[in-house]
Amino acid sequence: MTSPIISSIPPAGSLAFWFEFASPYSYLAAERVQALARKAKIIIQWRPFLLGAIFKHDNGTTDSPFNAHHRKKAYMWRDIERLCQSRALPALTVPDPFPMNGLLAARLAVALDDDERLPRFIHAVYRAEFQQGMDISDPTVLMAILEQNGFDADREFAAAGHDATKARLRLLTDEAIAQGIFGAPAFITSDQEVFWGDDRLEQALEWAQTIA
Amino acid sequence: MTSPIISSIPPAGSLAFWFEFASPYSYLAAERVQALARKAKIIIQWRPFLLGAIFKHDNGTTDSPFNAHHRKKAYMWRDIERLCQSRALPALTVPDPFPMNGLLAARLAVALDDDERLPRFIHAVYRAEFQQGMDISDPTVLMAILEQNGFDADREFAAAGHDATKARLRLLTDEAIAQGIFGAPAFITSDQEVFWGDDRLEQALEWAQTIA
Repeated sequence: MTSPIISSIPPAGSLAFWFEFASPYSYLAAERVQALARKAKIIIQWRPFLLGAIFKHDNGTTDSPFNAHHRKKAYMWRDIERLCQSRALPALTVPDPFPMNGLLAARLAVALDDDERLPRFIHAVYRAEFQQGMDISDPTVLMAILEQNGFDADREFAAAGHDATKARLRLLTDEAIAQGIFGAPAFITSDQEVFWGDDRLEQALEWAQTIA
Repeated sequence: MTSPIISSIPPAGSLAFWFEFASPYSYLAAERVQALARKAKIIIQWRPFLLGAIFKHDNGTTDSPFNAHHRKKAYMWRDIERLCQSRALPALTVPDPFPMNGLLAARLAVALDDDERLPRFIHAVYRAEFQQGMDISDPTVLMAILEQNGFDADREFAAAGHDATKARLRLLTDEAIAQGIFGAPAFITSDQEVFWGDDRLEQALEWAQTIA
């Protein structure tokens, strides 16, 4: 079972976009990555992973580091609010709790792996979470998201529960660590340059163009 | 004794640039802030402060958080290396130790407070640290920097040692905390919007223009 999601290093002319469903800056990047990539003639490879597992690997805790730093966290929400405004995105709804558990959504993303279907699902989840304030760890919420976006919800839930799906998500997370990822979103080029953060998206695309 | 450095909130048409001498992203921002501000017709107010004191306030330790996170730290140096390249800055020299103690340099900056002299000193210190790899906590290094840049080194060292100078630097650091600063560099507009990081400089200048 090969698929674009499992190949480790993206080929020349493409950029791996590593995202975590709980991550607000991943949401911001997801909202603009396709338009910018199209303009740059770079193909995006979507890579879901579990940031909590990486935090645990690096810091011994799965919680967001923002939760240990209240002043930085307050700044983050204001920063994102301003970015939503300047990018004409709907007003941000701060998830409660933060971070939300993105495990089930990430497994669904792995199960849905397909160039056309995957981004549609990703956008729907992020918008439910950061625009409508829905709890994306709740299976009924994800069921509704799937149905409203034209997916066969029962089939996708079954696929998300397969051992192979779970194993692929773990593999992706291990790969993220091995490739130097410590936060989300991250972008990796075919020559394995790592770029971290929504604010490095343009730079990552330029780099991918240079080596394409 | 009033001076531009002590006024808390910058007036309309200006932007406060809060920097720490040990901070590599403050160095990157210092290298481009004047050209970008001139283009935006915004006046820069230079604000030295002690990031260690803020880390202690927030995290209970004065050390750089990068030193507790090796993968993130490795990424940071690569990120800065790439930014130096793309901005045609000389190759980065990673300070050893990192972070360097910027206390004496910050006191000198407070003592030198003057629209014309201050930026000249700041650039000289940052370049010695991040381009030539010199130890800016060493008084003889700072003496040499002052002399090579046309300052009266003995006089400035005496001024840096005054109680009033030390008190002003402490006040600046307290102000930074009170205004919501938790990292460096930070930019604050006349309506007290905080922007954090070299990569928010353009956004901060645009904000300052809008309210000017």
